[in-house]
Amino acid sequence: MPTYYKYTQLYNFARQVFKKIGCSDEHAEQAADVLISADLRGIDSHGMARLAGYVKQWEIKRLNPTPNIKVVHETPSTAVIDGDAGLGLVVAPTAMQIAIEKAQKVGTGWVAIKNSGHFGIAGYHAMMPLRYDMVGMTMTNASSLVTPTFSLDKLLGTNPIAVAVPTEKYPPFVADLATSAVAYGKMQILQRQGKEAPLGLVQNEQGQPSHNPHEPKIGGALLPLGSDRVHSSHKGYALGAIVDILSGVLPGANYGPWVPPFATAGNTSERTPPVGEGTGHFVGAMRIDAFRPAQDFKQSMDHWISTFKEAKAVEGKEVLIPGEPERNAHIERLITGIPVLPAVVESLEKLAQQFDLEWLENNKAQATSMQ
Amino acid sequence: MPTYYKYTQLYNFARQVFKKIGCSDEHAEQAADVLISADLRGIDSHGMARLAGYVKQWEIKRLNPTPNIKVVHETPSTAVIDGDAGLGLVVAPTAMQIAIEKAQKVGTGWVAIKNSGHFGIAGYHAMMPLRYDMVGMTMTNASSLVTPTFSLDKLLGTNPIAVAVPTEKYPPFVADLATSAVAYGKMQILQRQGKEAPLGLVQNEQGQPSHNPHEPKIGGALLPLGSDRVHSSHKGYALGAIVDILSGVLPGANYGPWVPPFATAGNTSERTPPVGEGTGHFVGAMRIDAFRPAQDFKQSMDHWISTFKEAKAVEGKEVLIPGEPERNAHIERLITGIPVLPAVVESLEKLAQQFDLEWLENNKAQATSMQ
Repeated sequence: MPTYYKYTQLYNFARQVFKKIGCSDEHAEQAADVLISADLRGIDSHGMARLAGYVKQWEIKRLNPTPNIKVVHETPSTAVIDGDAGLGLVVAPTAMQIAIEKAQKVGTGWVAIKNSGHFGIAGYHAMMPLRYDMVGMTMTNASSLVTPTFSLDKLLGTNPIAVAVPTEKYPPFVADLATSAVAYGKMQILQRQGKEAPLGLVQNEQGQPSHNPHEPKIGGALLPLGSDRVHSSHKGYALGAIVDILSGVLPGANYGPWVPPFATAGNTSERTPPVGEGTGHFVGAMRIDAFRPAQDFKQSMDHWISTFKEAKAVEGKEVLIPGEPERNAHIERLITGIPVLPAVVESLEKLAQQFDLEWLENNKAQATSMQ
Repeated sequence: MPTYYKYTQLYNFARQVFKKIGCSDEHAEQAADVLISADLRGIDSHGMARLAGYVKQWEIKRLNPTPNIKVVHETPSTAVIDGDAGLGLVVAPTAMQIAIEKAQKVGTGWVAIKNSGHFGIAGYHAMMPLRYDMVGMTMTNASSLVTPTFSLDKLLGTNPIAVAVPTEKYPPFVADLATSAVAYGKMQILQRQGKEAPLGLVQNEQGQPSHNPHEPKIGGALLPLGSDRVHSSHKGYALGAIVDILSGVLPGANYGPWVPPFATAGNTSERTPPVGEGTGHFVGAMRIDAFRPAQDFKQSMDHWISTFKEAKAVEGKEVLIPGEPERNAHIERLITGIPVLPAVVESLEKLAQQFDLEWLENNKAQATSMQ
C-alpha cells in the first residue's frame, strides 16, 4: 500500500536533498521541479523513486553538483552544450532555454548536449517551449537495455522521444515515449509483483520470446517497439538508433553500449574506455509563427484534438490524446496527493537520516487522510 | 513471374509519361528520379507501380503539371511552401533544397509544405542533404488507413518518417519507416497471394484482431506500430500523430481523415469540406558542423555502425543497419535489372498506348536475359 504525500512536501524534500549534496538554490529547485513533475504526471518510476539514485551518482563521484554548463559551439540555430557532469535534471532545461532563445531569433533552435546524466522525464523539457507558442522536442540516450532486431547484445537504451504541441482551449498535445516496446519500469513492477510478462516485451539470452520480467538482468533484453520482426521491431530499433545518434554521436557524448548506467543499486559498471563524454541529449524548439500565425495553428490543433477524441471507439474504451492520461493524473494528484510505495518511502527516510533532514511523518498522516 | 527491365529504361519511360501530362523537362526528370529510386531500393510499392496513379490524379484534375511552387512565409531557419497542387515528387525535393540552403546559412533548415501530393519514398528526400554533410529528415501525412489505439475510425495515414545520417567509409544510415505496424503494400501482397495476415497488423470493423489482409477496405484498418495496447500501439499512434501535426497542421495542409486519397483505382473520394490545402510534408536539414566537426562525427558514425554490425546475433540471422537492405537491393538491381510484376507491366503498357510512347519490348528480352 502506498503512502500519500502532498507534492509540495516531496518537492521541498527533494530540493533540500539536492542542496545537501552541494547544488545551488537555483539548481536544487530546478532539479526538484523536474522530479516532482514525474510523480505528478503519474510516471512514478522517474520521480522521487529515483532521488536516491541521483545521490548515489554523487557518492561515487559521477555527478558534479556545481557544474559549469557551457556552450562549446554554436550557430544561429544550433548549439552544443557541455553539461560538465552535472545533473541532467538541470542541464537539459538549461539547454532547452538556449533552444528557445535561438527559436525566438531565427525560427528554430536545436541543442545537442554531452557530458550530462539522467534527465528525468523527457516530456518536462519538451513542454518548456509551450508557453512561448513553440513546439518542443526532446530526446536522450540511456544505458543499454534493448537489443536491435535479431541481436543478442543490448546496444540501445530505452531512448525516449517527447514532442509537445501548443493548443488553444484543450490541454497541449504531449507525446512522451520510450522507443522500446515498454519502459523498464513496467518490468520492475512485474518483478515486484512476482508476475509474468506478456510475450513480446522481453527476450531471453538466446534471443527467444520470454515471459520472465527479470530477463534484462540475466542475459536477456527489452525488445524494441514492434516486439518482433513480423510486427516491425526493426522500426523501434531504427527510432532508438536515431535518438542515440542525435543525442550521443552528434554532440560527442557516449553512444550505444557505452552510455553510462544510472547508478541504481548494483548497477554502476561502465564500458571503458568511453567513446564520448557522459550521457547525451538533443532538444529543440520551433516557433509556430515561423510557419503560420500561432492563433490559426492552435485553433486547428483544437479541431485536430476534438476530431480524435470524438472518434468511434471499441466498446468500453475511448480514444485518448497523447498526454491526456498524464494530464489527468496531474489533476488528480494535486488533490489526492502523490502515492509513494513503501520501498521508495524507505529510501527517502534513509536520505533524511543521511542528510539530517526532518522526515514527513506528521504531514504523511495529514496527506493520507485527504484520500 | 516478374519481367526485368534496366532502370534506365524505366526511368526514361516515366520521364516521358510525366512530360506527356505537361510537366517541364526538369520536373519530369526529377519525378522519374524519385520513382525509379524506389524501385532500385526494393520498395516496389512506391515506384513504377504508382506511375498510373499519378496519371490518374492528373486525369481527375487533382494534379497541376505546371505548378508555381512558392515560399509563402519564412524566417532564417524555416519556410512554408505552397506546392500549388503539383507532384509531391517535385514539390518535396524543391522544399528540401530550400532547407539545405537555410542550413548552410544558419545551421539548420525546416520547411513545412502544403498543397502537395504523394511524394514517393520519404528516404529519397531525407538523403538529399547527405552530400552536404548534413542530417536529413522527412515526413509526410497520407490518406487515413490507420486507427489510433481503441479507435474504430481510421484517422491517420501510414505517415512515414525518414532520417538519413552521413558516414565516412560505410554507406549512410537511412531509416525510412511507416508509423503503422506495416505499410499497406504488405497487405496488398497478401491480398494478391490469397494469404492470411499474422495477427497484430490489421483489425476488423469491431476493432478486433483479424487475419484478413482486406480489412482496411471493408471497415477495418491497419494498426499503428506496436499493434495493440499491451505492446504499446499508443506509441505508434503518437508517432503517426506527430507526423500528421508537423506535416499537416503546421503548414495549413489537410490533416487526419481529411488528407486526400492517392487516386488508385476506385479510391478517389475526399472528405469535404477540406480543413487545409492538399497533402502536407515536413522536411529538415541539419549541418553536422553546426554541432561538431563533420569528419569527427562521420568517423564516430562508422564506429557506431561497426559496433552494431558486429553484434552477436540470433542463430542464422544478422543485425542490419537501417538502410542496409535497401542499399543491397540497389546494388543488386543495378546489375540484374528491376523486377516488374505482370499487373504493373500491364499498367505501363496501357500508359504507352495512351500517350503513344514506344513500349520496351526489345529491351525487355535483353534485360531479362541479364539475370
